[in-house]
Amino acid sequence: MKEVNIGLLGCGTVGTGVARLLLNNTDLISARVGARLNLKKVADVDITTDRGVAFPDGVWTTDADAVVRDPQIDIVVEMIGGKGIARDLMLKAIDHGKHIVTANKALLASHGNEIFQAAREKKVDIGFEASTGGCMPVIKTLREALVGNRIQTMTGILNGTCNYILTKITAEGIPFEDALAGAQEKGYAEADPTLDVDGHDTAHKLAILSALAYGMPLNLDDIYVEGISGITPGDIRFAEEFGYRIKLLAISKNNGDSVEARVHPTMIPITNILSSVNGAVNALMINGDAVDDIMLYGYGAGMMPTGSAVVSDCVDIARNLISGRAGRVPYLSYQAENIRNIAITSIDAVMTRYYFRFSALDHPGVLSKISGILGEYDISIKTVQQKGRKTNGSVPLVMQTHLANEASVQKALKRIEELKVVSTKPVFIRIEDDTILE
Amino acid sequence: MKEVNIGLLGCGTVGTGVARLLLNNTDLISARVGARLNLKKVADVDITTDRGVAFPDGVWTTDADAVVRDPQIDIVVEMIGGKGIARDLMLKAIDHGKHIVTANKALLASHGNEIFQAAREKKVDIGFEASTGGCMPVIKTLREALVGNRIQTMTGILNGTCNYILTKITAEGIPFEDALAGAQEKGYAEADPTLDVDGHDTAHKLAILSALAYGMPLNLDDIYVEGISGITPGDIRFAEEFGYRIKLLAISKNNGDSVEARVHPTMIPITNILSSVNGAVNALMINGDAVDDIMLYGYGAGMMPTGSAVVSDCVDIARNLISGRAGRVPYLSYQAENIRNIAITSIDAVMTRYYFRFSALDHPGVLSKISGILGEYDISIKTVQQKGRKTNGSVPLVMQTHLANEASVQKALKRIEELKVVSTKPVFIRIEDDTILE
Repeated sequence: MKEVNIGLLGCGTVGTGVARLLLNNTDLISARVGARLNLKKVADVDITTDRGVAFPDGVWTTDADAVVRDPQIDIVVEMIGGKGIARDLMLKAIDHGKHIVTANKALLASHGNEIFQAAREKKVDIGFEASTGGCMPVIKTLREALVGNRIQTMTGILNGTCNYILTKITAEGIPFEDALAGAQEKGYAEADPTLDVDGHDTAHKLAILSALAYGMPLNLDDIYVEGISGITPGDIRFAEEFGYRIKLLAISKNNGDSVEARVHPTMIPITNILSSVNGAVNALMINGDAVDDIMLYGYGAGMMPTGSAVVSDCVDIARNLISGRAGRVPYLSYQAENIRNIAITSIDAVMTRYYFRFSALDHPGVLSKISGILGEYDISIKTVQQKGRKTNGSVPLVMQTHLANEASVQKALKRIEELKVVSTKPVFIRIEDDTILE
Repeated sequence: MKEVNIGLLGCGTVGTGVARLLLNNTDLISARVGARLNLKKVADVDITTDRGVAFPDGVWTTDADAVVRDPQIDIVVEMIGGKGIARDLMLKAIDHGKHIVTANKALLASHGNEIFQAAREKKVDIGFEASTGGCMPVIKTLREALVGNRIQTMTGILNGTCNYILTKITAEGIPFEDALAGAQEKGYAEADPTLDVDGHDTAHKLAILSALAYGMPLNLDDIYVEGISGITPGDIRFAEEFGYRIKLLAISKNNGDSVEARVHPTMIPITNILSSVNGAVNALMINGDAVDDIMLYGYGAGMMPTGSAVVSDCVDIARNLISGRAGRVPYLSYQAENIRNIAITSIDAVMTRYYFRFSALDHPGVLSKISGILGEYDISIKTVQQKGRKTNGSVPLVMQTHLANEASVQKALKRIEELKVVSTKPVFIRIEDDTILE
């Protein structure tokens, strides 16, 4: 039987998952692939801790550099993370003609254009299924299953930590801080959860998905990002009364000459299936011109789900090696010469619907002041409700708008904030209900 | 640019969708694949009806036989359907060294072992993504994305017609016949809906999925099948009160030396995301040892969604042609020499939970008679409720059981049916709530 040799760089949680699958499911994988995937080398600074996996003799090394230069190694699996040493080793491995598999979304979102160019020159494959959506085959689906579709929109729950937190707040009515603490206790959130709850992890993934969907270079910088730390149980309750749930969404729309790409808390109809995606899972709804709406759902993180995606990439590359040809599917879905710069629309230019919550004095005339300012900025109100009566002298005044322009909304809210009858900074949450499946 | 020539056999609804995608999205597909997919020939008995697509000159023919023999054709797309002429043409095309793409689940489920064997000998590829789950990449996900996973269970809503009908009954409380008429009016159900509502279409798909998941030959005959025509609004309402929805599910479980594979109406918890899959869509939940639960969701039928799956298969084969090697991924996921006969458990041996509805006289002592018989057969009751009072002298008596054996249940129900106090045939619906995601 043919053999394909794998060198693993970094044996933390996901790296251990990869090793466990390659070692425990060896026969199963061979039975399917018709080749043997050998875990030949494992490089880590810590080579003594027991990972609960029976590694073959002689695989451990602290010398990652030797692994990327080892002529016996066919595929380098980079599980180090971060943008420093991981990037150096990946480029060096490519330079030595190794194929790469990685889960490093931050690195690809920031330096992907350079890395893919280097790989193109050396004619090596790069698998990065595990970078986005964990075990869900989002990359394979965009690059292969939907190859005949013009992608029109993508709407995704791409961070399990945030989704767990929002699910907890929704179910239990507890504040954000308590839900976050619960997520940390359960091991769903990092000690420093900033990258997750601020939406940047989701933005990394959206940069990758947008490049794949539309045939554009990776462009992380122009993605608008807003996190979930400002979401209160009250807003979630009001949303529910309007028939909505609040999710942290990655939203991307293809407007032809430009695309939207933004990450923010969003109200979506309870009847939309994304509203039923609860807990530490991910889901991505893709709309293509042929398939209409299609959704993937699964664990977006974790040792074994992510390990599964890495192994799937290793197998794809092994199959290419057997057939003697890398580059079977282009990295970013389109052939290099067809990738073109497509602008990401500034958030200021986006048109969407809005939910507003004002803390206003319970006075006659307050609504007319607020709605007068909204009217000046061409923001028309769909519904308005005063929720309960006075707390600290003011009451929540809750509104839904029709389609409105973001820049106008920001200007209007600033003017309203300055009103004497308004006691705190207005809250706004964007609403999406036209473009995604009912 | 390299060219790959396609011959289309059958230009009905899905065939037209395939042609439309290949012709309208030509540039998009070329930009991704780096090769041009030419629709070279279209064979149909009707070559005059306007399909609303601008076909190139000279593609039409009534001579399907000439297409499968045409040395210029690389890929034959079989969209004729049925098991007669479609099978003959497919085998002839294989014999002429053509690669095949098909959506014909009935043909594959019944004659797939013979067809795959012929293709293996001729070293040609067979793409059948469109046979199961329409636009959802279920075949690709099982064969490639989950290649490192031992598949443990599959739970699927695989017939959009049935799901539309059940959704309508649930939402509107109308009888089965009215919901079916509505589905026919909307074009979701065929004039003869038997294959759909009796569950056989779902069984065809489950035969294909089980072969792919477990590495066994296609085995349609041993799949237990039960349709939805007996489902009443009342049972749906009672299910809802217990916290369940009723869906027509394809259920498959890997028990190691044997597998379960069955199709029947099933109660699943409302909190399970499959309960939120409403309308004419499909969804498949797969549990793998690494990924845990992963779900695909999308349109399982229709011109363009199915066309999208066909085009994805054409592209996969085109990529293999460019790299000069067919057979990159084995047809049924496992290498031929690793496919082994695995028995499908008889429905009699299945253990699951049950919902029963009896029409019983509103007498003291009735419950004790019924529960006495159940006890004799080792069927223990979890809940029991009398619903309302007399209608036609009897009342609905509704029960949920703990895990019980199917054969025992059938025997007990037959005994209960013979009781004088029971006025109609007892209704039973199987419940699944342990093995699928909460």
